[in-house]
Amino acid sequence: MAQKGDLLSFRPDIKVLDATIRDGGLVNDFYFKDDLVKALYRANVKSGVDYMEFGYRADKEMFDEDKFGKWKFATDEQIREIVGENDTDLKISIMADVGRCNYKEDIHERSESPVDLVRVATYVNTMPAAIDMIEDAHRKGYETTCNIMALSNAKESDLDMALEMLGKSPVDGIYIVDSFGSLFPEQIRRISEQYMEVGEKYGKYIGMHAHNNQQLAFANTIESCSQGVSYLDATMGGMGRGAGNCSMELLLGFLKNPKYKLFPVIKFVEKYIEPLRAEGIEWGFAIPYLLTGHLNQHPRAAIAAMKEGRKDYSEFYKEIIDKD
Amino acid sequence: MAQKGDLLSFRPDIKVLDATIRDGGLVNDFYFKDDLVKALYRANVKSGVDYMEFGYRADKEMFDEDKFGKWKFATDEQIREIVGENDTDLKISIMADVGRCNYKEDIHERSESPVDLVRVATYVNTMPAAIDMIEDAHRKGYETTCNIMALSNAKESDLDMALEMLGKSPVDGIYIVDSFGSLFPEQIRRISEQYMEVGEKYGKYIGMHAHNNQQLAFANTIESCSQGVSYLDATMGGMGRGAGNCSMELLLGFLKNPKYKLFPVIKFVEKYIEPLRAEGIEWGFAIPYLLTGHLNQHPRAAIAAMKEGRKDYSEFYKEIIDKD
Repeated sequence: MAQKGDLLSFRPDIKVLDATIRDGGLVNDFYFKDDLVKALYRANVKSGVDYMEFGYRADKEMFDEDKFGKWKFATDEQIREIVGENDTDLKISIMADVGRCNYKEDIHERSESPVDLVRVATYVNTMPAAIDMIEDAHRKGYETTCNIMALSNAKESDLDMALEMLGKSPVDGIYIVDSFGSLFPEQIRRISEQYMEVGEKYGKYIGMHAHNNQQLAFANTIESCSQGVSYLDATMGGMGRGAGNCSMELLLGFLKNPKYKLFPVIKFVEKYIEPLRAEGIEWGFAIPYLLTGHLNQHPRAAIAAMKEGRKDYSEFYKEIIDKD
Repeated sequence: MAQKGDLLSFRPDIKVLDATIRDGGLVNDFYFKDDLVKALYRANVKSGVDYMEFGYRADKEMFDEDKFGKWKFATDEQIREIVGENDTDLKISIMADVGRCNYKEDIHERSESPVDLVRVATYVNTMPAAIDMIEDAHRKGYETTCNIMALSNAKESDLDMALEMLGKSPVDGIYIVDSFGSLFPEQIRRISEQYMEVGEKYGKYIGMHAHNNQQLAFANTIESCSQGVSYLDATMGGMGRGAGNCSMELLLGFLKNPKYKLFPVIKFVEKYIEPLRAEGIEWGFAIPYLLTGHLNQHPRAAIAAMKEGRKDYSEFYKEIIDKD
């Protein structure tokens, strides 16, 4: 597939989604203060970001509200407190995990909600449940995406089948998700082609959500973009689980559409993200994440090693090779 | 140009060059302790790295020996103290800067030296001086490369002429150098094609030296590699000026030639690089480097901002836009 777009043009189909509260929430258990969330909303509006994700809509029967900040649950009311009537061009998304969201009750009609887009996160093997959630959200009037996680561990034949199922579903977009940060740009190129084929056949857009275990989150995001992928996830300061995500400040520095402004992002990172780091909240590239990414493993062992402050990387490497 | 190699094969033409002491020396004024340099030498041998660069051979008339560690000058005697007869497969390189190296006197016959490769660093506009240095080193029996710095600021027509001059010179290899860390993978692809054309015409190999201002050092290195570039620079922990370089631990995690071993690199980073960081020696990705990279500027303003501990990124951004 030929490269789509070049460095002196821009593609109007590209949309940027800020996932700071949602993926960053995995770092601080969703304890973001309201002034940060309000400032992020304003920064996203000013910088021309297309979507802001406010968190998960997790099932309160399954997760204890006392153990998480409110953006784990991201109710319509909580979002309204930040965005009011959201009289802006910024659209609002939430993520709903298969098996962890009581969607029939907790996702209301779009006409009654500030939310525009429901993103359904699933593994390949729970696709029928994901499609049920997508159909439910679609009936209620929402835009929908399906985010297929842990792609690097899925069998190609299973993935083909999942993509066909999604193609025939009412979903609007399908996301490539490199959960383990283990994929190289040449793999992203091939996977993007595969997703784009299904997207073109069934009229779905394709999105990219990257992790930075091998310092490739930004590179993989723009690589997918050059193959025609159009919905691009990023987070402020790259804040996200483990090694974090594609940084918004890198992505907006790359995109050529003049509607995107880098300055409000830099200011937000300075005023709100750097203080989080200074408080000791940790994310971003580090050797343990490199090693789980290299071995195509879930980052949980690396997250634990970082929390313990382990610096014995070579011992850690031996441990996780044994687990592989 | 079609992709060269894939993820399940390896190209025997690929060579890895460890530039930790040389580019990392720009961070700590070349004050590396002997035990670190010896351990690095052993780690490079064990991990199958092809070349180790010991520093610059700077002119002692121009630079005060009291103000720099010895690897700014990297004499044959100093290198011998580390490598002895260097009875290994690891080759030794030094860098010689145009205008800052008294090469006629300070670079001796290869038969009397532990050095195998002299890398001549130049800007496009000092190409005649670079070629004089290359011819001198070639006559003395060395392998040679020419590293054309600040490529992103060179005019295409000047670069074409420089590449033709090098093609006709006795140089063995020509390096792409993204000094400002400002280039995106799609630019690297195009530039690699341009260099590879000259390389194929004149029988020169092509190398890549990347900087990490936009978290693309590793991505750009493997992108160039997929276009046929075969000499790849990396440093332990990415240690190098400003945002640093392509990390050796990322590069060896990617390369498929079984001669490359990741474990000795992880161990070296743990034992020798992390303690440097703990001492307060700073390098690696940060917002000020992103901003100079984004604006295609020399990182000197960002280096100064980092040394001052500035966190007012938005003010810094305004200052350097004014200078642009």
